Amino acid sequence: MHNILINGQPGERIAVTDRALHYGDGLFETIAVINGSPRFWERHISRLHRGCERLGIPLPDRTLLREEVGQIACNEAACVVKIIVSRGSGGRGYRPPAVVEPTRLVMRYPFPDYPLSRATEGIELRVCDTPLGCNPRLAGIKHLNRLEQVLARSEWDDERVVEGIMLDSEGHLVDGTMSNLFLVIDGVLCTPELSRCGVEGVVRATLIDLAQQQGIPLRIAPIKVVMLARAEEVFVSNALIGIWPVNRCGELRFTVGPVTGRLQALLATTLESGDA
Amino acid sequence: MHNILINGQPGERIAVTDRALHYGDGLFETIAVINGSPRFWERHISRLHRGCERLGIPLPDRTLLREEVGQIACNEAACVVKIIVSRGSGGRGYRPPAVVEPTRLVMRYPFPDYPLSRATEGIELRVCDTPLGCNPRLAGIKHLNRLEQVLARSEWDDERVVEGIMLDSEGHLVDGTMSNLFLVIDGVLCTPELSRCGVEGVVRATLIDLAQQQGIPLRIAPIKVVMLARAEEVFVSNALIGIWPVNRCGELRFTVGPVTGRLQALLATTLESGDA
Repeated sequence: MHNILINGQPGERIAVTDRALHYGDGLFETIAVINGSPRFWERHISRLHRGCERLGIPLPDRTLLREEVGQIACNEAACVVKIIVSRGSGGRGYRPPAVVEPTRLVMRYPFPDYPLSRATEGIELRVCDTPLGCNPRLAGIKHLNRLEQVLARSEWDDERVVEGIMLDSEGHLVDGTMSNLFLVIDGVLCTPELSRCGVEGVVRATLIDLAQQQGIPLRIAPIKVVMLARAEEVFVSNALIGIWPVNRCGELRFTVGPVTGRLQALLATTLESGDA
Repeated sequence: MHNILINGQPGERIAVTDRALHYGDGLFETIAVINGSPRFWERHISRLHRGCERLGIPLPDRTLLREEVGQIACNEAACVVKIIVSRGSGGRGYRPPAVVEPTRLVMRYPFPDYPLSRATEGIELRVCDTPLGCNPRLAGIKHLNRLEQVLARSEWDDERVVEGIMLDSEGHLVDGTMSNLFLVIDGVLCTPELSRCGVEGVVRATLIDLAQQQGIPLRIAPIKVVMLARAEEVFVSNALIGIWPVNRCGELRFTVGPVTGRLQALLATTLESGDA
Protein backbone atom coordinates (compact mmCIF):
# COMPACT_ATOMS: atom_id res chain seq x y z
CA MET A 1 0.00 0.00 0.00
CA HIS A 2 1.31 3.38 -0.99
CA ASN A 3 0.87 6.32 1.30
CA ILE A 4 1.86 9.09 -1.09
CA LEU A 5 0.47 9.95 -4.51
CA ILE A 6 2.28 12.55 -6.60
CA ASN A 7 0.08 13.66 -9.48
CA GLY A 8 -1.71 10.36 -9.07
CA GLN A 9 1.39 8.17 -9.08
CA PRO A 10 2.99 6.49 -6.07
CA GLY A 11 6.20 8.25 -5.13
CA GLU A 12 8.24 9.75 -2.33
CA ARG A 13 10.18 12.56 -3.95
CA ILE A 14 9.37 15.69 -5.90
CA ALA A 15 11.42 17.87 -8.21
CA VAL A 16 13.64 20.43 -6.45
CA THR A 17 12.30 22.95 -8.97
CA ASP A 18 8.83 22.84 -7.40
CA ARG A 19 7.68 26.30 -6.36
CA ALA A 20 6.21 24.96 -3.11
CA LEU A 21 9.78 24.34 -2.02
CA HIS A 22 11.16 27.69 -3.20
CA TYR A 23 8.34 30.05 -2.23
CA GLY A 24 5.63 28.10 -0.43
CA ASP A 25 3.69 28.76 -3.63
CA GLY A 26 0.68 26.54 -3.00
CA LEU A 27 -2.08 25.40 -0.67
CA PHE A 28 -2.92 22.48 1.56
CA GLU A 29 -5.77 20.70 3.30
CA THR A 30 -5.62 18.32 6.25
CA ILE A 31 -8.56 15.94 6.21
CA ALA A 32 -9.91 13.35 8.65
CA VAL A 33 -10.88 10.26 6.67
CA ILE A 34 -13.07 7.80 8.57
CA ASN A 35 -13.82 4.43 6.93
CA GLY A 36 -12.83 5.86 3.59
CA SER A 37 -15.09 8.88 3.92
CA PRO A 38 -13.40 12.29 4.10
CA ARG A 39 -15.15 14.46 6.69
CA PHE A 40 -16.10 17.99 5.67
CA TRP A 41 -15.10 17.13 2.10
CA GLU A 42 -17.13 19.86 0.41
CA ARG A 43 -15.77 22.50 2.74
CA HIS A 44 -12.18 21.31 2.31
CA ILE A 45 -12.41 21.26 -1.48
CA SER A 46 -14.18 24.62 -1.54
CA ARG A 47 -11.45 26.24 0.56
CA LEU A 48 -8.77 24.65 -1.63
CA HIS A 49 -10.48 26.08 -4.70
CA ARG A 50 -10.83 29.52 -3.08
CA GLY A 51 -7.12 29.39 -2.32
CA CYS A 52 -6.24 28.37 -5.89
CA GLU A 53 -8.35 31.23 -7.24
CA ARG A 54 -6.68 33.70 -4.90
CA LEU A 55 -3.17 32.58 -5.91
CA GLY A 56 -4.01 32.09 -9.59
CA ILE A 57 -3.26 28.37 -9.57
CA PRO A 58 -5.40 26.19 -11.89
CA LEU A 59 -8.04 24.35 -9.88
CA PRO A 60 -7.44 20.64 -9.30
CA ASP A 61 -10.25 18.42 -10.52
CA ARG A 62 -12.39 17.65 -7.49
CA THR A 63 -13.53 14.23 -8.72
CA LEU A 64 -9.95 13.19 -9.34
CA LEU A 65 -8.85 14.43 -5.93
CA ARG A 66 -11.74 12.61 -4.25
CA GLU A 67 -10.71 9.39 -5.99
CA GLU A 68 -7.10 9.78 -4.91
CA VAL A 69 -8.10 10.43 -1.31
CA GLY A 70 -10.29 7.32 -1.41
CA GLN A 71 -7.51 5.28 -2.98
CA ILE A 72 -4.91 6.22 -0.41
CA ALA A 73 -7.24 5.80 2.57
CA CYS A 74 -9.06 2.67 1.43
CA ASN A 75 -7.62 0.24 3.96
CA GLU A 76 -7.79 2.49 7.01
CA ALA A 77 -10.52 2.78 9.62
CA ALA A 78 -9.30 6.25 10.43
CA CYS A 79 -6.46 8.26 8.95
CA VAL A 80 -5.39 11.76 8.05
CA VAL A 81 -4.99 12.71 4.41
CA LYS A 82 -3.07 15.83 3.58
CA ILE A 83 -3.43 17.38 0.14
CA ILE A 84 -0.88 19.85 -1.21
CA VAL A 85 -1.48 21.69 -4.48
CA SER A 86 1.46 23.77 -5.66
CA ARG A 87 2.04 25.93 -8.73
CA GLY A 88 4.39 23.20 -9.91
CA SER A 89 7.89 23.56 -11.26
CA GLY A 90 9.39 26.78 -12.50
CA GLY A 91 12.65 28.55 -13.14
CA ARG A 92 14.37 30.96 -10.80
CA GLY A 93 12.39 34.06 -9.90
CA TYR A 94 9.03 34.91 -8.36
CA ARG A 95 7.17 35.38 -11.60
CA PRO A 96 4.88 32.39 -12.21
CA PRO A 97 5.69 30.46 -15.39
CA ALA A 98 3.58 31.21 -18.46
CA VAL A 99 2.30 27.65 -18.49
CA VAL A 100 1.49 26.31 -15.04
CA GLU A 101 1.31 22.57 -14.39
CA PRO A 102 0.33 22.27 -10.74
CA THR A 103 1.76 19.57 -8.52
CA ARG A 104 -0.84 17.52 -6.65
CA LEU A 105 0.27 15.61 -3.55
CA VAL A 106 -2.01 13.30 -1.58
CA MET A 107 -0.39 11.90 1.55
CA ARG A 108 -1.68 9.56 4.24
CA TYR A 109 -0.72 9.86 7.92
CA PRO A 110 -1.88 7.93 10.99
CA PHE A 111 -4.82 9.43 12.82
CA PRO A 112 -3.35 11.07 15.95
CA ASP A 113 -4.17 9.28 19.21
CA TYR A 114 -5.36 12.33 21.09
CA PRO A 115 -6.49 11.56 24.66
CA LEU A 116 -10.30 11.56 24.86
CA SER A 117 -10.05 13.76 27.95
CA ARG A 118 -9.16 16.71 25.75
CA ALA A 119 -12.70 16.76 24.38
CA THR A 120 -14.33 16.21 27.77
CA GLU A 121 -12.18 17.94 30.37
CA GLY A 122 -10.53 20.44 28.08
CA ILE A 123 -6.99 21.56 27.38
CA GLU A 124 -4.50 24.19 28.44
CA LEU A 125 -3.70 27.04 26.05
CA ARG A 126 -0.95 29.59 25.94
CA VAL A 127 -0.78 32.95 24.22
CA CYS A 128 2.17 32.94 21.79
CA ASP A 129 4.73 35.72 21.45
CA THR A 130 5.11 35.23 17.70
CA PRO A 131 2.66 37.63 16.05
CA LEU A 132 0.73 37.08 12.86
CA GLY A 133 1.44 39.50 10.05
CA CYS A 134 -1.65 40.93 8.39
CA ASN A 135 -2.21 40.56 4.67
CA PRO A 136 -5.76 40.49 3.30
CA ARG A 137 -4.48 38.83 0.10
CA LEU A 138 -3.39 35.79 2.07
CA ALA A 139 -5.97 35.79 4.88
CA GLY A 140 -8.44 32.94 5.27
CA ILE A 141 -6.86 30.52 2.80
CA LYS A 142 -4.65 27.61 3.80
CA HIS A 143 -1.49 28.52 1.91
CA LEU A 144 1.95 27.00 2.40
CA ASN A 145 3.63 30.05 4.00
CA ARG A 146 3.50 28.79 7.56
CA LEU A 147 6.68 30.01 9.24
CA GLU A 148 4.66 32.06 11.71
CA GLN A 149 2.92 28.91 12.92
CA VAL A 150 6.23 27.02 13.03
CA LEU A 151 7.82 29.73 15.16
CA ALA A 152 4.79 29.95 17.43
CA ARG A 153 4.71 26.17 17.94
CA SER A 154 8.44 26.25 18.71
CA GLU A 155 7.84 28.55 21.67
CA TRP A 156 6.93 25.84 24.17
CA ASP A 157 7.93 22.29 25.11
CA ASP A 158 5.62 21.84 28.09
CA GLU A 159 3.48 18.86 27.09
CA ARG A 160 0.65 20.08 29.33
CA VAL A 161 0.13 23.02 26.99
CA VAL A 162 -1.71 21.69 23.98
CA GLU A 163 -2.24 24.72 21.78
CA GLY A 164 -1.02 28.29 21.39
CA ILE A 165 -3.15 31.26 20.49
CA MET A 166 -1.71 33.81 18.08
CA LEU A 167 -2.39 37.54 18.03
CA ASP A 168 -2.05 40.07 15.28
CA SER A 169 0.30 43.01 15.78
CA GLU A 170 -2.53 45.06 17.28
CA GLY A 171 -3.25 42.51 20.00
CA HIS A 172 -6.34 40.92 18.51
CA LEU A 173 -6.95 37.22 18.99
CA VAL A 174 -6.74 35.48 15.61
CA ASP A 175 -6.50 31.71 15.86
CA GLY A 176 -4.46 28.85 17.29
CA THR A 177 -1.33 27.55 15.61
CA MET A 178 -3.44 24.67 14.24
CA SER A 179 -7.01 25.55 15.21
CA ASN A 180 -9.66 28.25 15.28
CA LEU A 181 -10.71 29.99 18.46
CA PHE A 182 -14.16 30.56 19.95
CA LEU A 183 -15.17 32.41 23.11
CA VAL A 184 -18.52 32.62 24.84
CA ILE A 185 -18.94 36.13 26.24
CA ASP A 186 -22.20 37.10 27.96
CA GLY A 187 -23.82 34.09 26.32
CA VAL A 188 -22.75 35.11 22.82
CA LEU A 189 -20.58 32.77 20.74
CA CYS A 190 -17.69 34.92 19.50
CA THR A 191 -14.95 34.11 17.00
CA PRO A 192 -12.34 36.40 15.45
CA GLU A 193 -13.07 37.69 11.98
CA LEU A 194 -10.29 36.62 9.64
CA SER A 195 -10.19 39.14 6.83
CA ARG A 196 -6.62 40.27 7.60
CA CYS A 197 -4.94 37.08 8.83
CA GLY A 198 -5.71 33.57 10.03
CA VAL A 199 -7.18 30.49 8.39
CA GLU A 200 -10.91 29.95 7.89
CA GLY A 201 -11.23 26.44 9.29
CA VAL A 202 -13.77 23.96 7.97
CA VAL A 203 -15.08 23.22 11.48
CA ARG A 204 -15.23 26.93 12.22
CA ALA A 205 -17.42 27.39 9.13
CA THR A 206 -19.58 24.42 10.17
CA LEU A 207 -20.02 25.83 13.68
CA ILE A 208 -20.95 29.25 12.32
CA ASP A 209 -23.64 27.62 10.18
CA LEU A 210 -24.88 25.51 13.09
CA ALA A 211 -25.07 28.51 15.41
CA GLN A 212 -27.09 30.43 12.83
CA GLN A 213 -29.42 27.49 12.18
CA GLN A 214 -29.96 26.88 15.90
CA GLY A 215 -30.40 30.49 16.90
CA ILE A 216 -27.27 30.60 19.04
CA PRO A 217 -26.24 34.27 19.36
CA LEU A 218 -23.10 34.70 17.24
CA ARG A 219 -20.59 37.49 16.81
CA ILE A 220 -17.79 37.41 14.22
CA ALA A 221 -15.61 40.43 14.92
CA PRO A 222 -12.14 41.59 15.90
CA ILE A 223 -11.58 40.48 19.52
CA LYS A 224 -8.89 41.97 21.73
CA VAL A 225 -6.78 39.53 23.76
CA VAL A 226 -8.03 41.09 27.02
CA MET A 227 -11.48 39.67 26.21
CA LEU A 228 -10.15 36.21 27.13
CA ALA A 229 -10.50 37.25 30.76
CA ARG A 230 -14.18 38.04 30.19
CA ALA A 231 -15.07 34.73 28.52
CA GLU A 232 -17.32 32.23 30.28
CA GLU A 233 -16.24 29.49 27.90
CA VAL A 234 -13.39 29.08 25.43
CA PHE A 235 -12.78 26.35 22.88
CA VAL A 236 -10.67 25.57 19.83
CA SER A 237 -11.67 23.64 16.72
CA ASN A 238 -10.17 21.95 13.72
CA ALA A 239 -10.91 19.14 11.29
CA LEU A 240 -9.08 16.46 13.28
CA ILE A 241 -9.99 17.40 16.85
CA GLY A 242 -13.51 18.70 16.33
CA ILE A 243 -13.98 20.86 19.44
CA TRP A 244 -11.65 20.93 22.43
CA PRO A 245 -12.81 23.03 25.37
CA VAL A 246 -10.14 25.18 27.01
CA ASN A 247 -9.86 24.89 30.78
CA ARG A 248 -6.84 27.08 31.28
CA CYS A 249 -4.84 29.80 29.59
CA GLY A 250 -1.99 31.15 31.69
CA GLU A 251 -3.57 32.33 34.95
CA LEU A 252 -7.09 32.21 33.56
CA ARG A 253 -9.35 29.24 34.32
CA PHE A 254 -12.44 28.24 32.31
CA THR A 255 -15.12 25.63 32.86
CA VAL A 256 -16.39 23.33 30.14
CA GLY A 257 -19.71 25.08 29.68
CA PRO A 258 -23.12 24.56 28.12
CA VAL A 259 -22.53 26.35 24.81
CA THR A 260 -19.40 24.32 24.15
CA GLY A 261 -21.22 21.11 25.07
CA ARG A 262 -24.16 21.95 22.85
CA LEU A 263 -21.90 22.69 19.87
CA GLN A 264 -19.97 19.46 20.44
CA ALA A 265 -23.28 17.57 20.32
CA LEU A 266 -24.46 19.44 17.23
CA LEU A 267 -21.15 18.78 15.50
CA ALA A 268 -21.32 15.07 16.37
CA THR A 269 -24.86 14.88 14.98
CA THR A 270 -23.76 16.61 11.80
CA LEU A 271 -20.91 14.15 11.37
CA GLU A 272 -23.13 11.14 12.07
CA SER A 273 -25.73 12.33 9.59
CA GLY A 274 -23.07 12.51 6.92
CA ASP A 275 -23.75 16.20 6.33
CA ALA A 276 -20.17 17.20 7.11
CA MET B 1 28.19 18.19 -14.99
CA HIS B 2 25.59 18.25 -12.28
CA ASN B 3 23.69 21.43 -11.57
CA ILE B 4 22.04 20.39 -8.31
CA LEU B 5 23.60 19.11 -5.10
CA ILE B 6 21.31 17.78 -2.38
CA ASN B 7 23.21 17.43 0.87
CA GLY B 8 26.33 17.27 -1.25
CA GLN B 9 25.10 14.60 -3.64
CA PRO B 10 23.96 15.11 -7.23
CA GLY B 11 20.19 14.77 -7.47
CA GLU B 12 17.00 16.29 -8.79
CA ARG B 13 14.35 15.29 -6.25
CA ILE B 14 13.79 15.74 -2.55
CA ALA B 15 11.59 13.92 -0.05
CA VAL B 16 7.97 15.06 0.01
CA THR B 17 8.31 15.13 3.81
CA ASP B 18 10.67 18.12 3.65
CA ARG B 19 9.40 21.01 5.74
CA ALA B 20 10.40 23.53 3.07
CA LEU B 21 7.63 22.06 0.95
CA HIS B 22 5.02 21.94 3.72
CA TYR B 23 5.68 25.22 5.53
CA GLY B 24 8.39 27.13 3.72
CA ASP B 25 10.45 26.22 6.77
CA GLY B 26 13.87 27.36 5.63
CA LEU B 27 16.04 30.03 4.05
CA PHE B 28 17.70 30.79 0.75
CA GLU B 29 20.45 32.82 -0.88
CA THR B 30 20.83 33.78 -4.52
CA ILE B 31 24.48 34.33 -5.39
CA ALA B 32 26.31 35.67 -8.43
CA VAL B 33 29.32 33.45 -9.08
CA ILE B 34 31.89 34.93 -11.46
CA ASN B 35 34.78 32.71 -12.59
CA GLY B 36 34.13 30.43 -9.66
CA SER B 37 34.16 33.24 -7.13
CA PRO B 38 30.89 33.91 -5.28
CA ARG B 39 30.36 37.65 -4.96
CA PHE B 40 29.44 39.03 -1.54
CA TRP B 41 30.10 35.57 -0.09
CA GLU B 42 30.65 36.69 3.49
CA ARG B 43 27.49 38.75 3.47
CA HIS B 44 25.45 35.92 1.95
CA ILE B 45 26.66 33.36 4.44
CA SER B 46 26.21 35.76 7.35
CA ARG B 47 22.62 36.45 6.38
CA LEU B 48 21.97 32.73 5.95
CA HIS B 49 23.37 32.13 9.43
CA ARG B 50 21.29 34.97 10.90
CA GLY B 51 18.23 33.39 9.31
CA CYS B 52 19.08 29.94 10.68
CA GLU B 53 19.53 31.39 14.15
CA ARG B 54 16.23 33.22 13.92
CA LEU B 55 14.35 30.08 12.85
CA GLY B 56 16.27 27.71 15.11
CA ILE B 57 17.75 25.69 12.26
CA PRO B 58 21.27 24.25 12.81
CA LEU B 59 23.83 26.34 10.92
CA PRO B 60 25.23 24.80 7.75
CA ASP B 61 29.01 24.51 7.72
CA ARG B 62 30.31 27.50 5.80
CA THR B 63 33.42 25.76 4.48
CA LEU B 64 31.34 22.87 3.16
CA LEU B 65 28.85 25.25 1.53
CA ARG B 66 31.68 27.20 -0.06
CA GLU B 67 33.12 24.00 -1.49
CA GLU B 68 29.77 22.94 -2.90
CA VAL B 69 29.23 26.33 -4.51
CA GLY B 70 32.69 26.09 -6.06
CA GLN B 71 32.05 22.56 -7.24
CA ILE B 72 28.77 23.37 -8.95
CA ALA B 73 30.03 26.58 -10.56
CA CYS B 74 33.51 25.40 -11.54
CA ASN B 75 33.01 25.33 -15.31
CA GLU B 76 31.07 28.57 -15.65
CA ALA B 77 32.36 32.06 -16.41
CA ALA B 78 29.25 33.49 -14.79
CA CYS B 79 26.32 31.75 -13.18
CA VAL B 80 23.79 32.05 -10.40
CA VAL B 81 23.94 29.67 -7.47
CA LYS B 82 20.92 29.40 -5.24
CA ILE B 83 21.30 27.83 -1.81
CA ILE B 84 18.30 26.55 0.14
CA VAL B 85 18.65 25.37 3.72
CA SER B 86 15.51 23.82 5.18
CA ARG B 87 14.70 22.29 8.55
CA GLY B 88 14.65 18.94 6.76
CA SER B 89 12.06 16.20 6.93
CA GLY B 90 9.45 15.92 9.62
CA GLY B 91 6.07 14.43 10.42
CA ARG B 92 2.74 16.20 10.12
CA GLY B 93 2.35 19.31 12.27
CA TYR B 94 4.10 22.62 12.76
CA ARG B 95 6.21 21.54 15.72
CA PRO B 96 9.82 21.08 14.63
CA PRO B 97 11.12 17.54 15.09
CA ALA B 98 13.20 16.83 18.20
CA VAL B 99 16.19 15.96 16.03
CA VAL B 100 16.62 18.28 13.06
CA GLU B 101 18.65 17.19 10.05
CA PRO B 102 18.61 20.19 7.72
CA THR B 103 18.37 19.78 3.98
CA ARG B 104 21.03 21.64 2.00
CA LEU B 105 20.36 22.39 -1.66
CA VAL B 106 22.92 24.03 -3.96
CA MET B 107 21.55 24.76 -7.44
CA ARG B 108 23.13 26.34 -10.50
CA TYR B 109 21.21 28.55 -12.93
CA PRO B 110 22.34 30.52 -16.00
CA PHE B 111 23.32 34.09 -15.32
CA PRO B 112 20.40 36.22 -16.58
CA ASP B 113 21.14 38.19 -19.75
CA TYR B 114 19.91 41.53 -18.50
CA PRO B 115 20.25 44.36 -21.06
CA LEU B 116 23.18 46.60 -20.16
CA SER B 117 20.93 49.62 -20.67
CA ARG B 118 19.21 48.87 -17.39
CA ALA B 119 22.34 49.87 -15.51
CA THR B 120 23.01 52.93 -17.67
CA GLU B 121 19.64 54.35 -18.71
CA GLY B 122 17.58 52.91 -15.89
CA ILE B 123 14.38 50.94 -15.59
CA GLU B 124 10.68 51.47 -15.11
CA LEU B 125 9.12 50.59 -11.76
CA ARG B 126 5.56 50.12 -10.63
CA VAL B 127 4.05 50.26 -7.17
CA CYS B 128 2.41 46.92 -6.40
CA ASP B 129 -1.05 46.48 -4.90
CA THR B 130 -0.06 43.40 -2.90
CA PRO B 131 0.99 44.64 0.53
CA LEU B 132 3.69 43.20 2.74
CA GLY B 133 2.55 41.87 6.10
CA CYS B 134 4.66 43.03 9.03
CA ASN B 135 6.31 40.54 11.35
CA PRO B 136 9.52 41.50 13.15
CA ARG B 137 10.29 37.80 13.71
CA LEU B 138 10.58 37.26 9.97
CA ALA B 139 11.84 40.67 8.84
CA GLY B 140 15.26 41.07 7.25
CA ILE B 141 16.02 37.39 6.71
CA LYS B 142 15.62 35.59 3.40
CA HIS B 143 13.15 32.90 4.41
CA LEU B 144 11.13 30.68 2.09
CA ASN B 145 7.68 32.23 2.75
CA ARG B 146 7.52 34.27 -0.44
CA LEU B 147 3.88 34.24 -1.53
CA GLU B 148 3.68 38.00 -1.13
CA GLN B 149 6.46 38.43 -3.69
CA VAL B 150 4.87 35.86 -5.99
CA LEU B 151 1.53 37.68 -5.89
CA ALA B 152 3.19 41.06 -6.38
CA ARG B 153 5.19 39.80 -9.38
CA SER B 154 1.99 38.34 -10.84
CA GLU B 155 0.39 41.78 -10.96
CA TRP B 156 1.92 42.84 -14.26
CA ASP B 157 2.85 41.41 -17.64
CA ASP B 158 4.10 44.59 -19.29
CA GLU B 159 7.71 43.75 -20.17
CA ARG B 160 8.64 47.44 -20.01
CA VAL B 161 8.06 47.37 -16.26
CA VAL B 162 11.07 45.67 -14.74
CA GLU B 163 10.42 45.73 -11.02
CA GLY B 164 7.59 46.36 -8.56
CA ILE B 165 7.87 48.19 -5.27
CA MET B 166 5.99 46.80 -2.31
CA LEU B 167 4.48 48.78 0.55
CA ASP B 168 3.56 47.75 4.06
CA SER B 169 -0.05 48.11 5.17
CA GLU B 170 0.65 51.64 6.41
CA GLY B 171 1.87 52.83 3.04
CA HIS B 172 5.59 52.78 3.72
CA LEU B 173 7.98 51.84 0.94
CA VAL B 174 9.69 48.56 1.86
CA ASP B 175 11.53 46.96 -1.04
CA GLY B 176 11.11 45.60 -4.55
CA THR B 177 9.82 42.10 -5.23
CA MET B 178 13.44 41.03 -5.80
CA SER B 179 15.50 44.08 -4.85
CA ASN B 180 16.08 46.77 -2.27
CA LEU B 181 15.08 50.37 -2.82
CA PHE B 182 17.08 53.59 -2.45
CA LEU B 183 15.98 57.20 -2.91
CA VAL B 184 18.04 60.36 -2.98
CA ILE B 185 16.05 63.14 -1.29
CA ASP B 186 17.61 66.58 -0.83
CA GLY B 187 21.01 65.01 -1.45
CA VAL B 188 20.54 62.37 1.25
CA LEU B 189 20.71 58.67 0.35
CA CYS B 190 17.58 57.14 1.89
CA THR B 191 16.55 53.50 2.21
CA PRO B 192 13.65 51.96 4.14
CA GLU B 193 14.45 50.46 7.51
CA LEU B 194 13.50 46.80 7.51
CA SER B 195 12.79 45.85 11.11
CA ARG B 196 9.15 44.92 10.43
CA CYS B 197 9.25 43.47 6.91
CA GLY B 198 11.47 43.21 3.86
CA VAL B 199 14.77 41.50 3.13
CA GLU B 200 18.14 42.97 4.10
CA GLY B 201 19.95 42.60 0.78
CA VAL B 202 23.67 41.98 0.56
CA VAL B 203 24.18 44.86 -1.89
CA ARG B 204 22.03 47.11 0.32
CA ALA B 205 24.35 46.33 3.25
CA THR B 206 27.41 46.96 1.05
CA LEU B 207 26.03 50.31 -0.12
CA ILE B 208 25.23 51.36 3.44
CA ASP B 209 28.82 50.60 4.41
CA LEU B 210 30.20 52.43 1.35
CA ALA B 211 28.05 55.49 2.02
CA GLN B 212 29.28 55.63 5.60
CA GLN B 213 32.92 55.16 4.57
CA GLN B 214 32.66 57.84 1.87
CA GLY B 215 30.73 60.37 3.91
CA ILE B 216 27.63 60.20 1.74
CA PRO B 217 24.70 61.47 3.86
CA LEU B 218 22.57 58.43 4.69
CA ARG B 219 19.18 57.97 6.26
CA ILE B 220 17.72 54.53 7.13
CA ALA B 221 14.16 55.16 8.21
CA PRO B 222 10.50 54.45 7.46
CA ILE B 223 9.68 56.21 4.17
CA LYS B 224 6.12 56.95 3.06
CA VAL B 225 5.27 56.14 -0.56
CA VAL B 226 4.52 59.83 -1.25
CA MET B 227 8.22 60.54 -0.79
CA LEU B 228 8.85 58.94 -4.19
CA ALA B 229 7.55 62.16 -5.73
CA ARG B 230 10.17 64.13 -3.80
CA ALA B 231 13.15 61.99 -4.82
CA GLU B 232 15.83 63.38 -7.12
CA GLU B 233 17.13 59.90 -7.82
CA VAL B 234 15.80 56.39 -7.26
CA PHE B 235 17.51 53.06 -7.71
CA VAL B 236 17.14 49.39 -6.84
CA SER B 237 19.82 46.88 -5.92
CA ASN B 238 20.39 43.18 -5.57
CA ALA B 239 23.18 40.65 -5.78
CA LEU B 240 22.68 39.87 -9.47
CA ILE B 241 21.90 43.30 -10.87
CA GLY B 242 24.10 45.45 -8.67
CA ILE B 243 22.44 48.86 -9.04
CA TRP B 244 19.74 49.73 -11.56
CA PRO B 245 18.69 53.36 -11.67
CA VAL B 246 14.97 54.01 -11.95
CA ASN B 247 13.88 56.40 -14.69
CA ARG B 248 10.14 56.05 -14.26
CA CYS B 249 7.53 54.94 -11.78
CA GLY B 250 3.94 55.44 -12.96
CA GLU B 251 3.65 59.15 -13.82
CA LEU B 252 6.87 60.04 -12.05
CA ARG B 253 10.08 60.54 -14.02
CA PHE B 254 13.61 60.38 -12.62
CA THR B 255 17.02 61.09 -14.07
CA VAL B 256 20.04 58.88 -13.59
CA GLY B 257 21.82 61.15 -11.14
CA PRO B 258 25.23 61.69 -9.58
CA VAL B 259 24.67 59.82 -6.31
CA THR B 260 23.51 56.72 -8.17
CA GLY B 261 26.46 56.95 -10.55
CA ARG B 262 28.91 57.39 -7.71
CA LEU B 263 27.56 54.36 -5.87
CA GLN B 264 27.66 52.28 -9.05
CA ALA B 265 31.32 53.18 -9.42
CA LEU B 266 32.09 52.47 -5.76
CA LEU B 267 30.31 49.11 -6.00
CA ALA B 268 32.26 48.22 -9.15
CA THR B 269 35.53 49.09 -7.42
CA THR B 270 34.56 47.00 -4.41
CA LEU B 271 33.80 44.04 -6.66
CA GLU B 272 37.02 44.44 -8.63
CA SER B 273 39.10 44.66 -5.48
CA GLY B 274 37.62 41.36 -4.32
CA ASP B 275 36.26 42.94 -1.13
CA ALA B 276 32.66 41.98 -1.90
